[in-house]
Amino acid sequence: MTIYDISEKAGVSIATVSRVLNGSSNVSEKTRKKVLDVINRYEYTPNAFARGLGLNTMKTIGILCADSSDLYLAKGIYYIEQKLRSNGYDSLLCCTGYTLENRINSLNLLINKKVDSVVLVGSNFIYENEENNRYICNAAAQVPIMLLNGALDAPNVYSIVSDDFTSMYEATCQMIDSGVNDILYYYNSASYSGKRKLAGYRLAMEERDLLKSPELLQFYRGSHEDIPAMTEHLKQLHRDGLSFHGLIAADDTLALSAIKYAGELGIAIPSELSIIGYNNSMLVNSCVPELTSIDNKLETLCQHLISTLLGVLDGREMPKKTIFSGELVRRGTTR
Amino acid sequence: MTIYDISEKAGVSIATVSRVLNGSSNVSEKTRKKVLDVINRYEYTPNAFARGLGLNTMKTIGILCADSSDLYLAKGIYYIEQKLRSNGYDSLLCCTGYTLENRINSLNLLINKKVDSVVLVGSNFIYENEENNRYICNAAAQVPIMLLNGALDAPNVYSIVSDDFTSMYEATCQMIDSGVNDILYYYNSASYSGKRKLAGYRLAMEERDLLKSPELLQFYRGSHEDIPAMTEHLKQLHRDGLSFHGLIAADDTLALSAIKYAGELGIAIPSELSIIGYNNSMLVNSCVPELTSIDNKLETLCQHLISTLLGVLDGREMPKKTIFSGELVRRGTTR
Repeated sequence: MTIYDISEKAGVSIATVSRVLNGSSNVSEKTRKKVLDVINRYEYTPNAFARGLGLNTMKTIGILCADSSDLYLAKGIYYIEQKLRSNGYDSLLCCTGYTLENRINSLNLLINKKVDSVVLVGSNFIYENEENNRYICNAAAQVPIMLLNGALDAPNVYSIVSDDFTSMYEATCQMIDSGVNDILYYYNSASYSGKRKLAGYRLAMEERDLLKSPELLQFYRGSHEDIPAMTEHLKQLHRDGLSFHGLIAADDTLALSAIKYAGELGIAIPSELSIIGYNNSMLVNSCVPELTSIDNKLETLCQHLISTLLGVLDGREMPKKTIFSGELVRRGTTR
Repeated sequence: MTIYDISEKAGVSIATVSRVLNGSSNVSEKTRKKVLDVINRYEYTPNAFARGLGLNTMKTIGILCADSSDLYLAKGIYYIEQKLRSNGYDSLLCCTGYTLENRINSLNLLINKKVDSVVLVGSNFIYENEENNRYICNAAAQVPIMLLNGALDAPNVYSIVSDDFTSMYEATCQMIDSGVNDILYYYNSASYSGKRKLAGYRLAMEERDLLKSPELLQFYRGSHEDIPAMTEHLKQLHRDGLSFHGLIAADDTLALSAIKYAGELGIAIPSELSIIGYNNSMLVNSCVPELTSIDNKLETLCQHLISTLLGVLDGREMPKKTIFSGELVRRGTTR
């Protein structure tokens, strides 16, 4: 039985049920009684209540991610598990893929396993259509939900995000200032974070009237690790006559394919092509020249997420949203 | 209560308890009664019993791996989760790190969450000291345990392994046949699989009397993704006067650092240095030239592991150990 069922049976809004559960004084005695009656009748015991009584806590945190074979998500999971363990918590991970149905099922699975909270790793869990985010609010009616690099304004949901918009805006400005005007934007995700990165690039380019053609925005549709296919995509653009002396990628893997593309076509880096990647992953050192990339401070984000979570579980009031700045780490692919 | 407790309380061997639980006819009536008495007295209900009665199955499989940020393990988890989901099973993952204590705790955590089976991903779960593998046998007394690329001969444990020994032996022979005699072996793990790879290299070299110096075996101790540190390690060997015209790495990341090392020192690949990696990961296409690597057929292994698991859960007799051959995929780093 969820907060939604109580709301329906008591004939009051979810916000009202939430206020009663949180002991807020801003509820009439009559309404409070109606809600508590339903709760008593159906024996609803939210995990938070049980925890308050020292019951039922397994010291276990659930983690959801779309795909553990994605380098960035895998690293996030790694940091979160390490930090949970050093604080005496176990963790249980479900990989959901990218469909809403699997996300709902996996979230329910974890909650049924009596976890104390669920961490959603990666911004792809947040949908543009508000209705689709209801599965998160439903879960938050039972346990606190932590979002790593996604944001949702809802009760019992805490968001820790990297300021991808500003990071990408500043990186684009710096490439323009270095003398490159025709900068291709290469991306493969339209997630919450993906949209913010794109908006940062777009603003920097439009402020200077440099976004001359929609062709400068190139979306790659294939597998997130198929570097040969990405490289071929760029070569096709070259054959089609698209000209660019800068490339900013929403992910290091995409940027790596740009280094390959330049190598195969004899384009000099950075004199003829400047390249910036994103995530500052282990890949930045695997190539020649080494890749300039935006460090979005994943470990700091994870550390802060765990501190916030421990505060929430401890009954303290914690910030609902925290934003960290990224940083451009310069290496051989930029001037 | 585990099979070990029953064995102790009934005063019979574990094998006898196992035979009684499996309904074997090879047990005397008196012994069978003793065991069943203990089970009844302590209300022991192994998951397998409950499942046989259609009770208690959550259609959920536990997965353990040491570190989800390791490319190879992450890919294994990915395949296993995908294949479980397409068969109607959920999965729960715990990352254990590399200490025995955390492994035991995580395995117990999953079993307490009522999973139907646990898959151990990666050969590092198997210890050389038999006593240390008892945690796996304990767990196997409750649910079937599946080992991906590790092997242990114990009741209710199923092993699916890649023939790393033969793969490495054949790759080494092929490099020798191409005219390279001084081949450095670069590795960073002494796991079950790591030892077999090393033995394959060693046999190929010793058969031809080419293992002239212990210096040809180089163990790298740092982080599994710190390519600059690996590269520096190789450069130090070069400064120390160690000469080698071939390098075989136990992992693609190590091989990538060899490509970097050669690039920085102006050593031509493959004419002055041949390189072979292991795992045939996404990294093989990220470098110039592209990396020759051993494909250990991870997806095939995972597919077979899931088929075996489903058979076991279905009550069918399945092979206790299955071995797959790897394959050398030739690219630009070998002649």
